[in-house]
Amino acid sequence: MSSSTPTPDGDRVDGRTPDQLREVRITRGWLDQAEGSALIEFGRTRVLCTASFSEGVPRWKKGSGSGWVTAEYAMLPRATNTRSPRESVKGRIGGRTHEISRLIGRSLRAVIDLDALGENTIQLDCDVLQADGGTRTAAITGAYVALADAVSWAKRHTDLPAAAEVLTDSVSAISVGIVDGRPLLDLEYREDVEAETDMNVVVTGSGSFVEVQGTAEGAPFDRTELGALLDLATGGCAELARVQGDVLAGQA
Amino acid sequence: MSSSTPTPDGDRVDGRTPDQLREVRITRGWLDQAEGSALIEFGRTRVLCTASFSEGVPRWKKGSGSGWVTAEYAMLPRATNTRSPRESVKGRIGGRTHEISRLIGRSLRAVIDLDALGENTIQLDCDVLQADGGTRTAAITGAYVALADAVSWAKRHTDLPAAAEVLTDSVSAISVGIVDGRPLLDLEYREDVEAETDMNVVVTGSGSFVEVQGTAEGAPFDRTELGALLDLATGGCAELARVQGDVLAGQA
Amino acid sequence: MSSSTPTPDGDRVDGRTPDQLREVRITRGWLDQAEGSALIEFGRTRVLCTASFSEGVPRWKKGSGSGWVTAEYAMLPRATNTRSPRESVKGRIGGRTHEISRLIGRSLRAVIDLDALGENTIQLDCDVLQADGGTRTAAITGAYVALADAVSWAKRHTDLPAAAEVLTDSVSAISVGIVDGRPLLDLEYREDVEAETDMNVVVTGSGSFVEVQGTAEGAPFDRTELGALLDLATGGCAELARVQGDVLAGQA
Amino acid sequence: MSSSTPTPDGDRVDGRTPDQLREVRITRGWLDQAEGSALIEFGRTRVLCTASFSEGVPRWKKGSGSGWVTAEYAMLPRATNTRSPRESVKGRIGGRTHEISRLIGRSLRAVIDLDALGENTIQLDCDVLQADGGTRTAAITGAYVALADAVSWAKRHTDLPAAAEVLTDSVSAISVGIVDGRPLLDLEYREDVEAETDMNVVVTGSGSFVEVQGTAEGAPFDRTELGALLDLATGGCAELARVQGDVLAGQA
Amino acid sequence: MSSSTPTPDGDRVDGRTPDQLREVRITRGWLDQAEGSALIEFGRTRVLCTASFSEGVPRWKKGSGSGWVTAEYAMLPRATNTRSPRESVKGRIGGRTHEISRLIGRSLRAVIDLDALGENTIQLDCDVLQADGGTRTAAITGAYVALADAVSWAKRHTDLPAAAEVLTDSVSAISVGIVDGRPLLDLEYREDVEAETDMNVVVTGSGSFVEVQGTAEGAPFDRTELGALLDLATGGCAELARVQGDVLAGQA
Amino acid sequence: MSSSTPTPDGDRVDGRTPDQLREVRITRGWLDQAEGSALIEFGRTRVLCTASFSEGVPRWKKGSGSGWVTAEYAMLPRATNTRSPRESVKGRIGGRTHEISRLIGRSLRAVIDLDALGENTIQLDCDVLQADGGTRTAAITGAYVALADAVSWAKRHTDLPAAAEVLTDSVSAISVGIVDGRPLLDLEYREDVEAETDMNVVVTGSGSFVEVQGTAEGAPFDRTELGALLDLATGGCAELARVQGDVLAGQA
Repeated sequence: MSSSTPTPDGDRVDGRTPDQLREVRITRGWLDQAEGSALIEFGRTRVLCTASFSEGVPRWKKGSGSGWVTAEYAMLPRATNTRSPRESVKGRIGGRTHEISRLIGRSLRAVIDLDALGENTIQLDCDVLQADGGTRTAAITGAYVALADAVSWAKRHTDLPAAAEVLTDSVSAISVGIVDGRPLLDLEYREDVEAETDMNVVVTGSGSFVEVQGTAEGAPFDRTELGALLDLATGGCAELARVQGDVLAGQA
Repeated sequence: MSSSTPTPDGDRVDGRTPDQLREVRITRGWLDQAEGSALIEFGRTRVLCTASFSEGVPRWKKGSGSGWVTAEYAMLPRATNTRSPRESVKGRIGGRTHEISRLIGRSLRAVIDLDALGENTIQLDCDVLQADGGTRTAAITGAYVALADAVSWAKRHTDLPAAAEVLTDSVSAISVGIVDGRPLLDLEYREDVEAETDMNVVVTGSGSFVEVQGTAEGAPFDRTELGALLDLATGGCAELARVQGDVLAGQA
Repeated sequence: MSSSTPTPDGDRVDGRTPDQLREVRITRGWLDQAEGSALIEFGRTRVLCTASFSEGVPRWKKGSGSGWVTAEYAMLPRATNTRSPRESVKGRIGGRTHEISRLIGRSLRAVIDLDALGENTIQLDCDVLQADGGTRTAAITGAYVALADAVSWAKRHTDLPAAAEVLTDSVSAISVGIVDGRPLLDLEYREDVEAETDMNVVVTGSGSFVEVQGTAEGAPFDRTELGALLDLATGGCAELARVQGDVLAGQA
Repeated sequence: MSSSTPTPDGDRVDGRTPDQLREVRITRGWLDQAEGSALIEFGRTRVLCTASFSEGVPRWKKGSGSGWVTAEYAMLPRATNTRSPRESVKGRIGGRTHEISRLIGRSLRAVIDLDALGENTIQLDCDVLQADGGTRTAAITGAYVALADAVSWAKRHTDLPAAAEVLTDSVSAISVGIVDGRPLLDLEYREDVEAETDMNVVVTGSGSFVEVQGTAEGAPFDRTELGALLDLATGGCAELARVQGDVLAGQA
Repeated sequence: MSSSTPTPDGDRVDGRTPDQLREVRITRGWLDQAEGSALIEFGRTRVLCTASFSEGVPRWKKGSGSGWVTAEYAMLPRATNTRSPRESVKGRIGGRTHEISRLIGRSLRAVIDLDALGENTIQLDCDVLQADGGTRTAAITGAYVALADAVSWAKRHTDLPAAAEVLTDSVSAISVGIVDGRPLLDLEYREDVEAETDMNVVVTGSGSFVEVQGTAEGAPFDRTELGALLDLATGGCAELARVQGDVLAGQA
Repeated sequence: MSSSTPTPDGDRVDGRTPDQLREVRITRGWLDQAEGSALIEFGRTRVLCTASFSEGVPRWKKGSGSGWVTAEYAMLPRATNTRSPRESVKGRIGGRTHEISRLIGRSLRAVIDLDALGENTIQLDCDVLQADGGTRTAAITGAYVALADAVSWAKRHTDLPAAAEVLTDSVSAISVGIVDGRPLLDLEYREDVEAETDMNVVVTGSGSFVEVQGTAEGAPFDRTELGALLDLATGGCAELARVQGDVLAGQA
C-alpha cells in the first residue's frame, strides 16, 4: 500500500515539497509466525515491526486484571551507511536505543486500554533493516498495524473477548524539522543531519498529541517555529492515519 | 540564594499557586576540588552538579580545534522514598538514566561555543542526593552554574584565553504538567505521578527553546493545553535565569 | 531466482522427496547501502546477509599485507515461533550464536585468498528474519553472494586491483539428517526436531568439503548412515552452487 | 556537631599533632526520606550515610527469625581531585569498592543482634561526596549513626518491639599510619600517599577490636610499630564514640 | 593408568607412528570432595574433570521425571604457552569456550538415559590445567570416568536405585587431522597448528559416532581423506574405551 | 617436600596441636610451560600458582624504568564441598575474589624491587583446585616460589641482568584464629567456620609484617588475643619460610 502525493515545485533533496511525505509502504503480515507483523517503508527507511501476544503479565502486574504493552527497538548493524557494531556484541544497549524503545512503548500504550486487554502482554519489536532518517517514527507507525493485528489474532485464538475494546484510537508519528530556516515534513537522513531543529511528534488518529519531542540541534527555536512544525506534523500524521486505516481494512 | 514568591490563594499540595516555583536554592562551590560545582535545591529535590575541566578531547574530535561538553546523571540509591538498587551493582545503566544524561548534555551544549572552548573537555556530573520531582530540570539548571564556574577557572588556570566567549547564553529548565485538568509549574513528586501530561522545557536566558519534551501520561493533549504549558515554562525559566545570574554575580 | 524440482512421490511433511531442496530464492542487492547484500530464502527461512567492505585490518593483522573476513550471525527476537529475548538485552551472546558466527566465518574464509584481498576487511552479517530450520546453512549460502558482490564493489571503488583473484571458489551449505531412519536433505524445522542425526555440510563449488558437522541427537550413527548423508549434502550443495552462479550472473 | 582538640606543637601538613583527629562533624538526618541518615565530615572528607529499613530478609535467611544488615560503598565521580569514571558506566564494580563495602557491612553487623532485629533488613549506603583520605573509616563511623536512627524509626513505625536490644554496642573506625617513621592518627590524603604502613582499625564503643587491617605500603612493619598504631587508633575511636554518643543524644 | 604402544618407525614430532596415541593417563578420584573426578593426561595435555551430582533439575525439566547432564569447559590462564586473560575478568565467555562446553554436554548425554537418572542433575566441569592439543577430546574422555563415578556415588548415597541403568554405553573422543598430506591420530599442539584438516570425533564404546566435526583449516578435503580420518579416530577411540574400562575396573 | 611436626596431645579436629601446621607440600615446576609454577598443598587445600613473565609493563608504567607484579586468584567450581557457579558464567567477579587477588599482589610486591625488575611484568595466577581453608595464605606462600622461579628464568632468558637483586626477601602467609576461645594456627575449613576471630598474616622471611588482617566474626577481640594470634602466625610463617627455602634450594 503506498501513499503518493504530486510534487509540484518542491526543491528538497529528493524533489519533495516541504509538507510532503516520502512514499510510505506498509506490508502487513510480512512474517508467517508472529501474531502481528508489518514491514513499513518511508522511502529507503525500512522497519520490520512485530507484535507478539502472550498470556500473562510481568510479575509486577500479576493479579491486577490489567495487561501490558512494551517495545524494543534495534537496528541491524548494516542498516546504516557505514556498519555499526552490534549492541549484543558490545554487551550493553546504548542510550539512544533505550530512549527510542521507551518512546515506542509509551506511544502505543496511549491507544491501548490495558484493562480491556486483560492479563495479557503484547511485546512489540521494531527492527530497522535499513535507515534513512525517521526510523523511530516509522517504527511507531508500523507497530500500530502489527499491534492491531495481534489484538485481532488474540480475539480469534485466546480468551480475549471479541467485543473487548482494546484499541481506543490509532496512533502514528512523524519527524519534522527546520532546515535552512524552512520547516519540513518527514526528514530523510541528509536533511536530518542539517536540521537546526528536529522534532518527533506522535499523534492519535483523532488528532491529539501523545508526545512532542523538539530539540534544537543548532540554534534554539521560538514559539512561531514550534507552531509551524506542529502544523506540519499534524498534517503528516493525518495522512499516515489514513494509510494505516486502508492497510488494516485490507485495501492496500 | 533563594527565590521566593508570595502565595496568595494556591491550593496545590504544598500551597503554591499554579505558576509558582518551589523555593530554589543554589550553593555555588559546594565542593573544594571540582573546577565548578553547585548544590541545587528545588524544595526537597537536591542535586549535586559538578563540572570537571580537562585538556584534550575524545578521540573522535582530535585535531578539530573544537571542544566537547558531556554529562552524566545518576541518583543515589536512597534519594527516593524507597531504596532503588545501584546501577553499578546491576551492571548496566537503565534507559531513564541514559535518556536524562543525554538531555543534560544537549541542553548545555546549546549555550556553549565549542570552537571557542578549544580542544578541551568539560564533563558534567549531576548526582541526585534527594529526589522529589524535577530532578532532570534541576540538574540542567544547576549544571549551568557549575559549567560557568569551570569556564572561569579554565580562563585563570589554563591556556584558554580570558577573552574567549565560550558561553553564548545561559540555560535553565523546568517541568510543567497538567494535573486534574489544570496546568501547573514545577511539579513535585506527588503532583508528577498524578499528571495527565508531563512536559520538560529547556529555555535559554534569552527566552528561546532548546528542548520541549511533552508526554501524555494519561489522556492525549491538544494545542491549547500545549500552549498553556509552554507559557508557564517560559515564565518559570525566566525566574530561574535571574536566580542563576544572581548566584554567579555573587549576590546570592 | 528460484530452484524448483518436481516432487513425484515424496511423503515429507511438505510433500518433498528425500533429496529435494525447499524452494530457494536469493534476492541480490536487497539493501541500498551495503557493499554486498542478499536476502536468501529456503521456504519460510529468511536470512538477510550483508557484506561490509572496509579498508584496513584488525590490529593483529596490521602490516601483514593480508586481509580478513569475519562473520556475525543473529536472529531477530520474533524470527521464531515464540519470541526469544534479545541477546543485546540479556547483555551476553549465547553459545549457539557464537558457534554459528564462527562457522560462517571459517566457511567463507575457505574460498577467499586473504593475501589477494590485501589489507582490507570484509565483515559479513547474517540476520535471520524468519526461522524454519537450516538458518546457518542458508546464511553461509547467502553470505557467499553478498561477499562476491562486496569484492566486485571494492574492485570498482577502492585500490583493490580488478585483476585480483580474491575468490578462489564458491561455497554453499546445507543441512541433512536422519528422520525416522531415513536420510533427508534440507530439513525444515518440524523435521529438524525429530531428527535422530543432524548434519551440516559446507561444500565448495568444486565439490570438496569445508566443514562436516554431524551430531547424534538421538541414537549414534554408523559409517553407512554417514555416507548416505554426505551423498545427499553433496548433491544439494551442487544445486545451490548453480543457483548462486545464476544469481551472480544476473540470470535470476 | 564538631570535635576539636587544641594543637600545641603539631607539625603535620595541616598543623595537627600526631594523635589529633581532623575536625569531625556529623549532621544527623541530612535526608528527609531515609529511615536513618547522616552526613559525616572528617576535614574535607564528606560521606553521606543512609540506612534503609525494610521488612523481610534475603531469600537465604527466610524463616530464620533473624535479620540482615548489609552495606554498599561508592564514590561520586568528582569526589576525588581528578574525576574517576563511574562504575555504573564501566559496567562493573572495582575490587576496592567491593572490599570496602564488605568491610562496612561486617563492622556494623558486629554491633547488631540480628536475632533481636527479627526478619527485617537494614541496607546501609555510604556515598563519598568528597574524598580526602579516610573515607572508609568515616563511612563506618557515620553509618553507625544512620543505623541507630533506622532502628529507632523501626521501633516507632513497625512491629519491631520498642524493648528489642538490637544494638549491642556502638562502633567507629579510624585510619592510622606510619609517615616518615612516625605513627599518625587520621591520615588525610596527602599523608596517606606517603605512608609506609597504613592501617584501618574498627573498634566498639567498649574498646574491643572488630577489624584490624594493616598493610605495609613501603617497608614491612614490626610488632612495636603495630603496637603504637593500635594505641593511636584506640584513642581516636574512643573520641569518635563520644562524638557519636553526643550526636545521638541530640547534644550536637 | 597408562596406555603405551610400541613406536616402530614413527617420524612425527615426538616420534609416534601416525596411528599412535600419546601416553594417556587417567587418575580417578583426584579430588576428595567431588562425587566423581578424574585428572586425564594426553602427553602434556592435562584436564581436571569433575562430576557434581545434585538432586533436582533445572526449572524447565521440573515434573518431567527425567534428569539432566550439562558441562562447562574452561582453561586456566597459564594452561597455554603464553598467558591468556581470564574470561571472568573479561566479563564474558568466548565463542570457543561455549562451543566446547556444548560439545562435551551433548557427548555425555548421548550415553546417559536421562529417564533412568530421575530428577537429578549431574554437572560436569572440565578445566584445562595444561594445554598441548586435544583438550576438548581429553575432556570428553575424562568426563566419562567422572560421570560414571558420580552415578555410582548416587546409587550408594541417594534415592537413585542401585539397579538403574543410567549409563547406556561409554564414550570417548579423539582428534585426528591431515598434516603434510598425511592423516594422523591424536594431534599435539605443534601438529594441530599445521594441520590442513582437523577433525574431532566422539565415539561410543560400541563403536558408533556421536559427533563428527571436520574442518578444513587449509585446503578443503575429499571423501577419501574423510574416510581415512574416520578410520584413525575409530581405532583411537577403541583404545581409549579400553583405558576407561580398565580405570573404572580399578585395574589402572 | 613436606613439613611434619610430631603431634603429642593435640585435640583439634585432625589431631594437630594449636601451633601445628597441616602437612605442607610444594611441588615446584608442576607445569611445563609457565616461567614459574608451584602446586602447593596445606592438607587437602591445593592451589596451583603460576608466574608468567612478560617484557613490557602496563600503559601507566611505560617509561618509568620500573616493572610490575600483579596477581589473580580464582577457585575452580568444584574446589569446594558443593559446587559454586563460575564467575566467568556469572559475568562478574565477586568481592571476595577481588579482595584476595589484591592481597596476593600487594604481598608479593612487598618483596620485589620493581626498579631492579626493569620494565617487565610478572603476572601471578593462583587457582584453587581444592579448598579446605587457608586458600589465600597458601596462594601467597606458593606464589612466592613461582615468582622466584620466574625471576630466575628471566635472568637466563631475557635481558634481565643475572646480578639484579629483584627479590629483596621471601614472603609467606598463614591464617590463625580463635576457636572456642583458643588461638589456633592454620585453620582448616571446619575450624574456620567456627572461629570467633579470623586473622590472615603475611610475614617476610626476615620476620616483619606485610599485612595483618584480623576480623571478629563473632565476639570482638582484645589486645591480648591479638598478641597471641600474632605469635602463632609469626612462628608458622617462619616454618613456611624454611619450607620455601628448601624447595628453592632443590632439597625438597
